[in-house]
Amino acid sequence: MSWFEPPFHSALLQQAVDAFTRLPGVGKRTALRMALYLLKQPKEDVERFGTAFIRLRNEVKYCAVCSMLSDTDVCPFCADVRRDKTIICVVESVRDVMSIEQTGHYKGQYHVLGGIISPIDGVGPDDLTIGALLERVSRGEAQEIVLALSTTMEGETTSFYISKQIDALSAQVRITAIARGVGFGDELECADELTLGRAIQNRQPFGYTNINKT
Amino acid sequence: MSWFEPPFHSALLQQAVDAFTRLPGVGKRTALRMALYLLKQPKEDVERFGTAFIRLRNEVKYCAVCSMLSDTDVCPFCADVRRDKTIICVVESVRDVMSIEQTGHYKGQYHVLGGIISPIDGVGPDDLTIGALLERVSRGEAQEIVLALSTTMEGETTSFYISKQIDALSAQVRITAIARGVGFGDELECADELTLGRAIQNRQPFGYTNINKT
Repeated sequence: MSWFEPPFHSALLQQAVDAFTRLPGVGKRTALRMALYLLKQPKEDVERFGTAFIRLRNEVKYCAVCSMLSDTDVCPFCADVRRDKTIICVVESVRDVMSIEQTGHYKGQYHVLGGIISPIDGVGPDDLTIGALLERVSRGEAQEIVLALSTTMEGETTSFYISKQIDALSAQVRITAIARGVGFGDELECADELTLGRAIQNRQPFGYTNINKT
Repeated sequence: MSWFEPPFHSALLQQAVDAFTRLPGVGKRTALRMALYLLKQPKEDVERFGTAFIRLRNEVKYCAVCSMLSDTDVCPFCADVRRDKTIICVVESVRDVMSIEQTGHYKGQYHVLGGIISPIDGVGPDDLTIGALLERVSRGEAQEIVLALSTTMEGETTSFYISKQIDALSAQVRITAIARGVGFGDELECADELTLGRAIQNRQPFGYTNINKT
Protein backbone atom coordinates (compact mmCIF):
# COMPACT_ATOMS: atom_id res chain seq x y z
CA MET A 1 0.00 0.00 0.00
CA SER A 2 1.30 3.42 -0.83
CA TRP A 3 1.26 6.17 1.68
CA PHE A 4 -0.54 9.53 1.44
CA GLU A 5 1.07 12.80 2.27
CA PRO A 6 -0.95 14.95 4.58
CA PRO A 7 -2.96 17.08 4.49
CA PHE A 8 -5.82 14.81 3.51
CA HIS A 9 -8.64 16.27 1.46
CA SER A 10 -10.89 15.86 4.55
CA ALA A 11 -10.04 17.80 7.72
CA LEU A 12 -12.25 15.46 9.78
CA LEU A 13 -10.34 12.43 8.57
CA GLN A 14 -7.05 14.24 9.08
CA GLN A 15 -7.91 15.03 12.70
CA ALA A 16 -8.92 11.45 13.47
CA VAL A 17 -5.72 10.10 11.87
CA ASP A 18 -3.62 12.66 13.77
CA ALA A 19 -5.32 11.58 17.00
CA PHE A 20 -4.50 7.91 16.43
CA THR A 21 -0.92 8.77 15.44
CA ARG A 22 -0.37 10.24 18.92
CA LEU A 23 -0.75 6.79 20.47
CA PRO A 24 2.40 4.81 21.21
CA GLY A 25 3.27 2.38 18.42
CA VAL A 26 0.75 3.74 15.91
CA GLY A 27 2.14 5.00 12.60
CA LYS A 28 0.33 6.96 9.91
CA ARG A 29 -0.76 3.92 7.93
CA THR A 30 -2.18 2.14 10.94
CA ALA A 31 -3.90 5.36 12.02
CA LEU A 32 -5.60 5.69 8.63
CA ARG A 33 -6.69 2.06 8.75
CA MET A 34 -8.18 2.64 12.21
CA ALA A 35 -9.98 5.83 11.17
CA LEU A 36 -11.51 4.19 8.08
CA TYR A 37 -12.51 1.24 10.27
CA LEU A 38 -14.40 3.55 12.63
CA LEU A 39 -16.29 5.02 9.67
CA LYS A 40 -17.82 1.61 9.05
CA GLN A 41 -19.04 1.20 12.63
CA PRO A 42 -22.47 2.26 13.93
CA LYS A 43 -22.60 5.83 15.24
CA GLU A 44 -23.47 4.77 18.78
CA ASP A 45 -20.42 2.49 18.90
CA VAL A 46 -18.10 5.28 17.80
CA GLU A 47 -19.74 7.60 20.33
CA ARG A 48 -19.07 5.04 23.05
CA PHE A 49 -15.55 4.53 21.72
CA GLY A 50 -14.60 8.21 21.88
CA THR A 51 -16.32 8.82 25.20
CA ALA A 52 -14.55 5.90 26.91
CA PHE A 53 -11.20 7.74 26.72
CA ILE A 54 -12.61 11.09 27.82
CA ARG A 55 -14.37 9.48 30.78
CA LEU A 56 -11.27 7.50 31.75
CA ARG A 57 -9.14 10.65 31.77
CA ASN A 58 -11.69 12.88 33.50
CA GLU A 59 -13.23 10.52 36.01
CA VAL A 60 -10.51 8.14 37.08
CA LYS A 61 -9.02 8.80 40.53
CA TYR A 62 -5.85 7.86 42.31
CA CYS A 63 -6.28 6.05 45.62
CA ALA A 64 -5.90 8.40 48.60
CA VAL A 65 -3.84 5.76 50.39
CA CYS A 66 -1.63 4.02 47.83
CA SER A 67 -1.98 6.20 44.70
CA MET A 68 -3.22 3.26 42.63
CA LEU A 69 -5.53 4.13 39.74
CA SER A 70 -9.10 3.67 40.94
CA ASP A 71 -12.74 4.45 40.20
CA THR A 72 -13.26 5.26 43.88
CA ASP A 73 -11.47 7.46 46.45
CA VAL A 74 -9.89 4.41 48.06
CA CYS A 75 -8.89 1.64 45.63
CA PRO A 76 -10.30 -1.92 45.85
CA PHE A 77 -6.92 -3.22 47.07
CA CYS A 78 -6.78 -0.85 50.06
CA ALA A 79 -10.50 -1.25 50.73
CA ASP A 80 -10.41 -5.06 50.73
CA VAL A 81 -10.49 -6.15 54.38
CA ARG A 82 -9.31 -9.65 53.46
CA ARG A 83 -5.92 -8.30 52.32
CA ASP A 84 -2.96 -8.25 54.69
CA LYS A 85 -2.50 -4.73 56.10
CA THR A 86 0.95 -5.45 57.55
CA ILE A 87 2.82 -5.64 54.25
CA ILE A 88 3.22 -2.91 51.62
CA CYS A 89 4.65 -3.64 48.18
CA VAL A 90 6.26 -0.54 46.62
CA VAL A 91 6.02 -0.37 42.82
CA GLU A 92 6.75 2.17 40.11
CA SER A 93 3.44 2.14 38.24
CA VAL A 94 -0.19 1.12 38.02
CA ARG A 95 0.82 -1.52 35.55
CA ASP A 96 3.20 -3.17 38.01
CA VAL A 97 0.34 -3.61 40.46
CA MET A 98 -1.64 -5.33 37.71
CA SER A 99 1.33 -7.59 36.88
CA ILE A 100 1.79 -8.62 40.52
CA GLU A 101 -1.95 -9.15 41.01
CA GLN A 102 -1.94 -11.40 37.99
CA THR A 103 0.56 -13.75 39.65
CA GLY A 104 -1.94 -14.43 42.46
CA HIS A 105 1.00 -14.70 44.91
CA TYR A 106 0.51 -11.47 46.81
CA LYS A 107 -2.34 -10.50 49.10
CA GLY A 108 -0.92 -7.43 50.86
CA GLN A 109 -1.13 -3.69 50.25
CA TYR A 110 0.51 -1.65 47.51
CA HIS A 111 2.14 1.72 47.19
CA VAL A 112 2.46 3.22 43.69
CA LEU A 113 5.33 5.68 43.41
CA GLY A 114 4.20 7.13 40.09
CA GLY A 115 7.70 6.84 38.61
CA ILE A 116 11.30 6.31 39.72
CA ILE A 117 14.08 8.70 40.62
CA SER A 118 15.76 9.68 37.36
CA PRO A 119 17.85 12.86 37.36
CA ILE A 120 18.27 12.64 33.57
CA ASP A 121 14.48 12.89 33.16
CA GLY A 122 14.24 15.53 35.88
CA VAL A 123 12.38 13.20 38.27
CA GLY A 124 13.43 13.67 41.90
CA PRO A 125 12.11 12.07 45.12
CA ASP A 126 9.62 14.93 45.60
CA ASP A 127 7.93 14.11 42.28
CA LEU A 128 7.02 10.67 43.61
CA THR A 129 4.69 9.53 46.40
CA ILE A 130 7.59 8.70 48.74
CA GLY A 131 6.34 11.21 51.33
CA ALA A 132 2.97 9.43 51.49
CA LEU A 133 4.75 6.07 51.84
CA LEU A 134 6.81 7.36 54.79
CA GLU A 135 3.61 8.60 56.44
CA ARG A 136 2.08 5.17 56.03
CA VAL A 137 5.16 3.58 57.60
CA SER A 138 5.06 6.13 60.46
CA ARG A 139 1.48 5.17 61.23
CA GLY A 140 2.98 1.83 62.27
CA GLU A 141 0.55 -0.64 60.68
CA ALA A 142 3.11 -2.04 58.22
CA GLN A 143 5.59 -4.65 59.40
CA GLU A 144 7.24 -5.24 56.03
CA ILE A 145 7.97 -3.06 53.02
CA VAL A 146 8.69 -5.02 49.81
CA LEU A 147 10.60 -3.01 47.23
CA ALA A 148 9.48 -4.26 43.81
CA LEU A 149 11.23 -1.85 41.45
CA SER A 150 13.06 -2.48 38.18
CA THR A 151 16.64 -3.74 38.32
CA THR A 152 17.84 -0.73 36.35
CA MET A 153 20.21 1.89 37.72
CA GLU A 154 17.24 4.20 38.40
CA GLY A 155 15.26 1.43 40.08
CA GLU A 156 18.16 0.48 42.37
CA THR A 157 18.77 4.14 43.21
CA THR A 158 15.11 4.61 44.12
CA SER A 159 15.10 1.43 46.25
CA PHE A 160 18.23 2.61 48.05
CA TYR A 161 16.78 6.09 48.65
CA ILE A 162 13.51 4.72 50.03
CA SER A 163 15.25 2.21 52.31
CA LYS A 164 17.43 5.01 53.76
CA GLN A 165 14.38 7.21 54.36
CA ILE A 166 12.53 4.39 56.11
CA ASP A 167 15.60 3.59 58.22
CA ALA A 168 15.65 7.25 59.30
CA LEU A 169 12.13 6.86 60.72
CA SER A 170 13.43 4.21 63.17
CA ALA A 171 10.16 2.36 62.62
CA GLN A 172 9.78 -1.34 63.50
CA VAL A 173 9.64 -2.42 59.87
CA ARG A 174 11.45 -5.00 57.80
CA ILE A 175 12.57 -3.89 54.33
CA THR A 176 12.79 -6.59 51.67
CA ALA A 177 13.20 -6.66 47.89
CA ILE A 178 11.77 -9.07 45.34
CA ALA A 179 14.16 -11.92 44.47
CA ARG A 180 16.63 -11.46 41.64
CA GLY A 181 17.64 -14.54 39.72
CA VAL A 182 17.34 -16.50 36.51
CA GLY A 183 13.77 -16.32 35.20
CA PHE A 184 11.72 -19.45 34.51
CA GLY A 185 12.23 -20.55 30.93
CA ASP A 186 15.53 -18.63 30.63
CA GLU A 187 18.58 -20.40 29.22
CA LEU A 188 21.42 -20.34 31.74
CA GLU A 189 23.95 -19.36 29.09
CA CYS A 190 21.85 -16.31 28.22
CA ALA A 191 21.76 -14.93 31.78
CA ASP A 192 24.17 -12.03 32.36
CA GLU A 193 27.08 -12.41 34.83
CA LEU A 194 25.59 -10.18 37.50
CA THR A 195 22.25 -11.99 37.52
CA LEU A 196 23.89 -15.42 37.47
CA GLY A 197 26.34 -14.39 40.20
CA ARG A 198 23.49 -13.24 42.44
CA ALA A 199 21.47 -16.33 41.64
CA ILE A 200 24.32 -18.56 42.84
CA GLN A 201 24.96 -16.49 46.00
CA ASN A 202 21.27 -16.47 46.89
CA ARG A 203 20.69 -20.16 46.12
CA GLN A 204 17.67 -21.70 47.80
CA PRO A 205 16.81 -25.17 49.13
CA PHE A 206 15.70 -27.18 46.07
CA GLY A 207 11.93 -27.27 45.73
CA TYR A 208 11.52 -23.70 46.98
CA THR A 209 12.10 -22.25 43.53
CA ASN A 210 10.33 -25.07 41.73
CA ILE A 211 7.95 -23.86 39.06
CA ASN A 212 5.24 -26.30 40.16
CA LYS A 213 5.24 -25.27 43.80
CA THR A 214 3.03 -22.28 44.41
CA MET B 1 5.31 -8.31 30.61
CA SER B 2 2.69 -10.56 31.99
CA TRP B 3 -0.90 -10.21 30.96
CA PHE B 4 -3.87 -9.38 33.20
CA GLU B 5 -7.10 -11.20 33.06
CA PRO B 6 -10.12 -8.96 32.79
CA PRO B 7 -12.08 -7.62 34.52
CA PHE B 8 -9.71 -4.92 35.70
CA HIS B 9 -10.24 -3.44 39.13
CA SER B 10 -11.30 -0.19 37.41
CA ALA B 11 -14.37 -0.20 35.16
CA LEU B 12 -13.23 3.06 33.53
CA LEU B 13 -9.91 1.52 32.57
CA GLN B 14 -11.65 -1.64 31.43
CA GLN B 15 -13.96 0.33 29.11
CA ALA B 16 -11.08 2.26 27.55
CA VAL B 17 -9.07 -0.94 27.02
CA ASP B 18 -12.12 -2.65 25.51
CA ALA B 19 -12.59 0.30 23.16
CA PHE B 20 -9.01 0.13 21.90
CA THR B 21 -9.24 -3.64 21.53
CA ARG B 22 -12.02 -3.16 18.98
CA LEU B 23 -9.59 -1.50 16.58
CA PRO B 24 -8.01 -3.66 13.87
CA GLY B 25 -4.59 -4.96 14.89
CA VAL B 26 -4.84 -3.91 18.54
CA GLY B 27 -4.52 -6.68 21.14
CA LYS B 28 -5.19 -6.46 24.86
CA ARG B 29 -1.64 -5.59 25.83
CA THR B 30 -1.37 -2.79 23.31
CA ALA B 31 -4.79 -1.51 24.34
CA LEU B 32 -3.71 -1.32 27.97
CA ARG B 33 -0.52 0.49 27.01
CA MET B 34 -2.57 2.99 25.00
CA ALA B 35 -5.07 3.57 27.83
CA LEU B 36 -2.31 4.13 30.41
CA TYR B 37 -0.60 6.48 27.94
CA LEU B 38 -3.77 8.58 27.65
CA LEU B 39 -3.90 8.87 31.44
CA LYS B 40 -0.60 10.75 31.34
CA GLN B 41 -1.80 13.27 28.76
CA PRO B 42 -3.43 16.64 29.54
CA LYS B 43 -7.22 16.49 29.85
CA GLU B 44 -7.80 18.84 26.91
CA ASP B 45 -5.69 16.59 24.66
CA VAL B 46 -7.68 13.50 25.63
CA GLU B 47 -10.91 15.45 25.11
CA ARG B 48 -9.75 16.39 21.60
CA PHE B 49 -8.60 12.81 21.03
CA GLY B 50 -11.96 11.26 21.87
CA THR B 51 -13.98 13.92 20.09
CA ALA B 52 -12.02 13.55 16.84
CA PHE B 53 -13.49 10.09 16.26
CA ILE B 54 -17.03 11.05 17.20
CA ARG B 55 -16.89 14.10 14.91
CA LEU B 56 -15.43 12.07 12.06
CA ARG B 57 -18.21 9.51 12.31
CA ASN B 58 -21.05 12.00 12.82
CA GLU B 59 -20.05 14.84 10.51
CA VAL B 60 -18.25 13.27 7.58
CA LYS B 61 -20.25 13.10 4.35
CA TYR B 62 -20.07 11.10 1.17
CA CYS B 63 -19.83 13.11 -2.06
CA ALA B 64 -23.22 13.39 -3.81
CA VAL B 65 -21.50 12.76 -7.15
CA CYS B 66 -18.76 10.16 -6.62
CA SER B 67 -19.43 8.85 -3.06
CA MET B 68 -15.94 9.82 -1.92
CA LEU B 69 -15.58 10.63 1.77
CA SER B 70 -15.80 14.40 2.13
CA ASP B 71 -16.31 17.25 4.59
CA THR B 72 -18.63 18.93 2.08
CA ASP B 73 -21.64 17.82 0.01
CA VAL B 74 -19.50 17.63 -3.12
CA CYS B 75 -15.94 16.40 -2.57
CA PRO B 76 -12.86 18.50 -3.49
CA PHE B 77 -12.09 16.18 -6.42
CA CYS B 78 -15.48 16.67 -8.07
CA ALA B 79 -15.53 20.38 -7.17
CA ASP B 80 -12.06 21.09 -8.60
CA VAL B 81 -12.62 22.76 -12.01
CA ARG B 82 -9.02 22.08 -13.04
CA ARG B 83 -9.63 18.33 -13.03
CA ASP B 84 -10.56 16.50 -16.22
CA LYS B 85 -14.36 15.90 -16.30
CA THR B 86 -14.20 13.45 -19.23
CA ILE B 87 -12.57 10.59 -17.38
CA ILE B 88 -13.91 8.65 -14.39
CA CYS B 89 -11.77 6.22 -12.42
CA VAL B 90 -13.84 3.53 -10.67
CA VAL B 91 -12.40 2.29 -7.37
CA GLU B 92 -13.55 0.11 -4.51
CA SER B 93 -12.82 2.38 -1.55
CA VAL B 94 -11.94 5.79 -0.20
CA ARG B 95 -8.46 4.52 0.44
CA ASP B 96 -7.94 3.62 -3.22
CA VAL B 97 -8.67 7.23 -4.19
CA MET B 98 -6.02 8.34 -1.74
CA SER B 99 -3.52 5.82 -3.14
CA ILE B 100 -4.11 6.98 -6.72
CA GLU B 101 -3.97 10.66 -5.72
CA GLN B 102 -0.64 10.01 -4.06
CA THR B 103 0.87 8.85 -7.37
CA GLY B 104 0.21 12.28 -8.87
CA HIS B 105 -0.48 10.60 -12.24
CA TYR B 106 -4.22 11.08 -12.40
CA LYS B 107 -6.16 14.31 -12.71
CA GLY B 108 -9.63 13.05 -13.66
CA GLN B 109 -12.77 12.23 -11.67
CA TYR B 110 -13.42 9.29 -9.36
CA HIS B 111 -16.28 6.99 -8.55
CA VAL B 112 -16.15 5.09 -5.25
CA LEU B 113 -18.17 1.85 -5.31
CA GLY B 114 -18.09 1.35 -1.55
CA GLY B 115 -17.10 -2.30 -1.95
CA ILE B 116 -16.98 -5.03 -4.58
CA ILE B 117 -19.42 -7.69 -5.63
CA SER B 118 -18.86 -10.63 -3.30
CA PRO B 119 -21.68 -13.17 -3.00
CA ILE B 120 -19.88 -14.90 -0.14
CA ASP B 121 -20.06 -11.69 1.93
CA GLY B 122 -23.60 -11.00 0.75
CA VAL B 123 -22.55 -7.96 -1.30
CA GLY B 124 -24.47 -7.64 -4.57
CA PRO B 125 -24.46 -4.93 -7.27
CA ASP B 126 -27.32 -3.09 -5.53
CA ASP B 127 -25.23 -2.62 -2.38
CA LEU B 128 -22.69 -0.60 -4.37
CA THR B 129 -22.92 2.78 -6.10
CA ILE B 130 -23.06 1.20 -9.56
CA GLY B 131 -26.47 2.81 -10.26
CA ALA B 132 -25.04 6.27 -9.61
CA LEU B 133 -22.10 5.48 -11.89
CA LEU B 134 -24.43 4.45 -14.72
CA GLU B 135 -26.37 7.72 -14.27
CA ARG B 136 -23.12 9.67 -14.54
CA VAL B 137 -22.26 7.79 -17.73
CA SER B 138 -25.77 8.41 -19.13
CA ARG B 139 -25.35 12.16 -18.61
CA GLY B 140 -22.68 11.86 -21.32
CA GLU B 141 -19.88 14.00 -19.89
CA ALA B 142 -17.51 11.06 -19.44
CA GLN B 143 -15.54 9.78 -22.43
CA GLU B 144 -13.52 7.16 -20.57
CA ILE B 145 -14.20 4.90 -17.61
CA VAL B 146 -11.05 3.46 -15.99
CA LEU B 147 -11.73 0.34 -13.94
CA ALA B 148 -9.18 0.33 -11.09
CA LEU B 149 -10.31 -2.62 -8.99
CA SER B 150 -8.30 -5.36 -7.29
CA THR B 151 -7.10 -8.29 -9.39
CA THR B 152 -8.94 -10.72 -7.18
CA MET B 153 -11.81 -12.90 -8.34
CA GLU B 154 -14.30 -10.42 -6.81
CA GLY B 155 -12.56 -7.44 -8.39
CA GLU B 156 -12.57 -9.03 -11.84
CA THR B 157 -16.22 -10.02 -11.46
CA THR B 158 -17.17 -6.48 -10.50
CA SER B 159 -15.19 -5.01 -13.41
CA PHE B 160 -16.91 -7.41 -15.80
CA TYR B 161 -20.36 -6.59 -14.38
CA ILE B 162 -19.80 -2.82 -14.64
CA SER B 163 -18.44 -3.03 -18.17
CA LYS B 164 -21.51 -5.03 -19.26
CA GLN B 165 -23.86 -2.50 -17.65
CA ILE B 166 -22.10 0.41 -19.35
CA ASP B 167 -22.18 -1.40 -22.71
CA ALA B 168 -25.94 -1.78 -22.28
CA LEU B 169 -26.30 1.99 -22.11
CA SER B 170 -24.88 2.28 -25.65
CA ALA B 171 -23.08 5.42 -24.49
CA GLN B 172 -20.13 6.87 -26.38
CA VAL B 173 -17.63 5.84 -23.75
CA ARG B 174 -14.36 3.96 -23.74
CA ILE B 175 -13.86 1.40 -20.95
CA THR B 176 -10.28 0.78 -19.84
CA ALA B 177 -8.60 -0.98 -16.92
CA ILE B 178 -5.37 -0.17 -15.11
CA ALA B 179 -2.36 -2.06 -16.44
CA ARG B 180 -1.51 -5.44 -14.94
CA GLY B 181 2.14 -6.45 -14.93
CA VAL B 182 5.25 -6.96 -12.84
CA GLY B 183 5.52 -4.26 -10.16
CA PHE B 184 8.57 -2.02 -9.85
CA GLY B 185 11.09 -3.60 -7.50
CA ASP B 186 9.58 -7.08 -7.97
CA GLU B 187 11.86 -10.02 -8.70
CA LEU B 188 10.82 -11.63 -11.97
CA GLU B 189 11.11 -15.12 -10.50
CA CYS B 190 8.63 -14.17 -7.80
CA ALA B 191 5.91 -13.05 -10.21
CA ASP B 192 3.14 -15.60 -10.70
CA GLU B 193 2.55 -17.22 -14.10
CA LEU B 194 -0.64 -15.33 -14.88
CA THR B 195 0.88 -11.92 -14.15
CA LEU B 196 4.08 -12.71 -16.01
CA GLY B 197 2.12 -14.11 -18.97
CA ARG B 198 0.00 -10.94 -19.18
CA ALA B 199 3.10 -8.76 -18.78
CA ILE B 200 4.73 -10.45 -21.80
CA GLN B 201 1.56 -10.28 -23.92
CA ASN B 202 1.05 -6.61 -23.12
CA ARG B 203 4.69 -5.63 -23.56
CA GLN B 204 5.33 -1.95 -24.21
CA PRO B 205 7.92 0.03 -26.22
CA PHE B 206 10.97 0.27 -23.94
CA GLY B 207 11.07 3.56 -22.06
CA TYR B 208 7.30 3.70 -21.65
CA THR B 209 7.43 1.60 -18.52
CA ASN B 210 10.67 3.11 -17.27
CA ILE B 211 10.58 4.04 -13.60
CA ASN B 212 12.23 7.41 -14.21
CA LYS B 213 9.79 8.51 -16.85
CA THR B 214 6.73 10.10 -15.31
